[in-house]
Amino acid sequence: MAIRFEVLHTDRETGARAGLLHTPHGTVETPAFMPVGTHGTVRALTPEEVHDAGAQIVLANTFHLSLRPGAETIARAGGLHTFMHWERPLLTDSGGYQVFSLPHLRSVSDEGVRFRSPVDGREVALSAERVIEIEAQLGADIIMPLDVCLGYPADPAAALEAHRRTVLWARRSKRAHRRVDQALFGIVQGGFDASLRRQAADEVVALDFPGYAIGGLSVGEAKGLMYDLLAAVGERLPASRPRYLMGVGSPPSMIEAVLRGVDMFDCVLPTRLGRTGTALTGRGAQNLRQAQYADDLEPIEEGCPCPACRHYSRAYLRHLVKAGEMLGPRLVSLHNLVFMGRLERQIRLAIREDRFAAWSREAIARYGSGHAGGNPAHVAEASGTLSGWEARG
Amino acid sequence: MAIRFEVLHTDRETGARAGLLHTPHGTVETPAFMPVGTHGTVRALTPEEVHDAGAQIVLANTFHLSLRPGAETIARAGGLHTFMHWERPLLTDSGGYQVFSLPHLRSVSDEGVRFRSPVDGREVALSAERVIEIEAQLGADIIMPLDVCLGYPADPAAALEAHRRTVLWARRSKRAHRRVDQALFGIVQGGFDASLRRQAADEVVALDFPGYAIGGLSVGEAKGLMYDLLAAVGERLPASRPRYLMGVGSPPSMIEAVLRGVDMFDCVLPTRLGRTGTALTGRGAQNLRQAQYADDLEPIEEGCPCPACRHYSRAYLRHLVKAGEMLGPRLVSLHNLVFMGRLERQIRLAIREDRFAAWSREAIARYGSGHAGGNPAHVAEASGTLSGWEARG
Repeated sequence: MAIRFEVLHTDRETGARAGLLHTPHGTVETPAFMPVGTHGTVRALTPEEVHDAGAQIVLANTFHLSLRPGAETIARAGGLHTFMHWERPLLTDSGGYQVFSLPHLRSVSDEGVRFRSPVDGREVALSAERVIEIEAQLGADIIMPLDVCLGYPADPAAALEAHRRTVLWARRSKRAHRRVDQALFGIVQGGFDASLRRQAADEVVALDFPGYAIGGLSVGEAKGLMYDLLAAVGERLPASRPRYLMGVGSPPSMIEAVLRGVDMFDCVLPTRLGRTGTALTGRGAQNLRQAQYADDLEPIEEGCPCPACRHYSRAYLRHLVKAGEMLGPRLVSLHNLVFMGRLERQIRLAIREDRFAAWSREAIARYGSGHAGGNPAHVAEASGTLSGWEARG
Repeated sequence: MAIRFEVLHTDRETGARAGLLHTPHGTVETPAFMPVGTHGTVRALTPEEVHDAGAQIVLANTFHLSLRPGAETIARAGGLHTFMHWERPLLTDSGGYQVFSLPHLRSVSDEGVRFRSPVDGREVALSAERVIEIEAQLGADIIMPLDVCLGYPADPAAALEAHRRTVLWARRSKRAHRRVDQALFGIVQGGFDASLRRQAADEVVALDFPGYAIGGLSVGEAKGLMYDLLAAVGERLPASRPRYLMGVGSPPSMIEAVLRGVDMFDCVLPTRLGRTGTALTGRGAQNLRQAQYADDLEPIEEGCPCPACRHYSRAYLRHLVKAGEMLGPRLVSLHNLVFMGRLERQIRLAIREDRFAAWSREAIARYGSGHAGGNPAHVAEASGTLSGWEARG
């Protein structure tokens, strides 16, 4: 077994879990936030910075990496860990989400998908088996099978069909899976109907995976619906296996999901906001492009140990962002990852000390009820369009 | 006196000088290469990285900083050193070069220049006095006066007029100069005629500045002509004052200029090449975008101690650059500055050990006769268009 999951403590009042996920490249304390390194790099940052920020595991994307630079190149380099200089736990997303967001999706059948590569226009075919083969070449510790992703709202017939195909592909992925040092997770899809989600969970659990992901959420539905579906799915997942909510990572949504038993998260939010000059803080987000920061000599967050807060004022960071200087996105992205690292640690500590219910109420109130994080295509690129938690500060 | 310059040693055979330039923010060993931080940031890098790369002094641009974020904002932040977190020697260019490269230059008279701001379109007036006033707000250790820059070829009448105005502005700049902790350098212009250049040097030296810059070179003229003009000007400059060749910094041109007695250099080349994925090496430049590096698992330069060479293959760096990932420009820029830092140290050592003649012959042969570096607007943005030294690898 490539991974081993230990639940160290379950919060008495809420059921939130603190655990350890042992992988061939090290142990991850859960709940864990995974920064996204789509192309084998967390945007603008070195692996050392990502690790120092508190990140324990990074996500990379099979779809993007297979198109460029190609899985063979990465395999020849000794695998993705070595290629990207991250000798720590690594997860590869299958690319299902990306494929189903493509403008030039050619065909989808039980066999797989065909599309034109957004890199060079050539026609590419991906099947459940081919994805597992590519992921074996990349060599991540945790790998995701090809799945069918729907947007919101989803037609019930389409949701049923997507679920059927996702389970079919999960079964075939499992059969194609060879590397004993890689853990293949199952993905629960099923649209926005709680009973179909429950059925999907049961069918995927019946295939017996070492961990389960919940996909297809935070794609435009109301947050309340997302939390209800999370709770419905959570009841059907075995407590002994890690649970990964895909594409969600805003602080309030993460906390709400931990309350419903989720252990792992990934989201582009911290780095995408960082690139546009929006900093995460305990009292909401700061859009440093705003004129109010032009002469503000305070750091983003007093007491934050990150380089952006130790050495630079909001005025300087604003100047960098306004002038289009790369150091701006770099420093704000780093701050945001340090913020997420601190948030994870606070969550884990509150669970272990059986005070997660009170802590989470206070934290959510402080952060605001905010934005659900969301999958890459759905997170607003400009911070100005974010509402709630993200718009404050 | 804001600065003090000591010539420690003059190479017996060539006249190349090794010295120390003492400034209020520390001492610079010369010959010295100054990385360019136009907007108060050396592109993509932190001040710590720039310093660790071996850079002792950084150049920022008065013109750009006065338009954005504005000199008042920087003054309120405690000056540019504090604002940009570089508490080391700092030089501000006046912006003459930038003003005379503007598409919307409105008028030039003895009074000064008027132009539309490229940031927000408002009309801006700059005079010799106003530039000194802005530079006093920025607070750099060495400041440059407003000058008139010409391209190549220059009409002799225009060159004479540009020279006359540059000297007029130098005199008025000196009169306006107040801060005793800032050293105002004189700039020798005069186009491409050696006798006018000599006359310009004599007139500027007569004004008695603590250091002299040679401007208006490497703007399209043949390298041989540039070296001849450098030698002509050098004969008229006092040996006791530092000599700064503006906008030049390719390795062969730097070495040729040191042979002619130059002590200081600035150039965007290392960071601009870095941003486009071209790495400087002792055997010429490597354009990492080239297909030949797709599966190349070697570092840019074996034995180089920079993070790019210690941790990453050419194949990975190429992937980052091709995928438009910021970490690529960041790592290659850092490598290039580390390369320049090593080159400076080698130059200084060879001079102190009286073997600069032989060392420089060998180094120039190895690097190739290459590109002269050049001012910002003249350096080819894409490394593919560079010739000689830069095109190798």
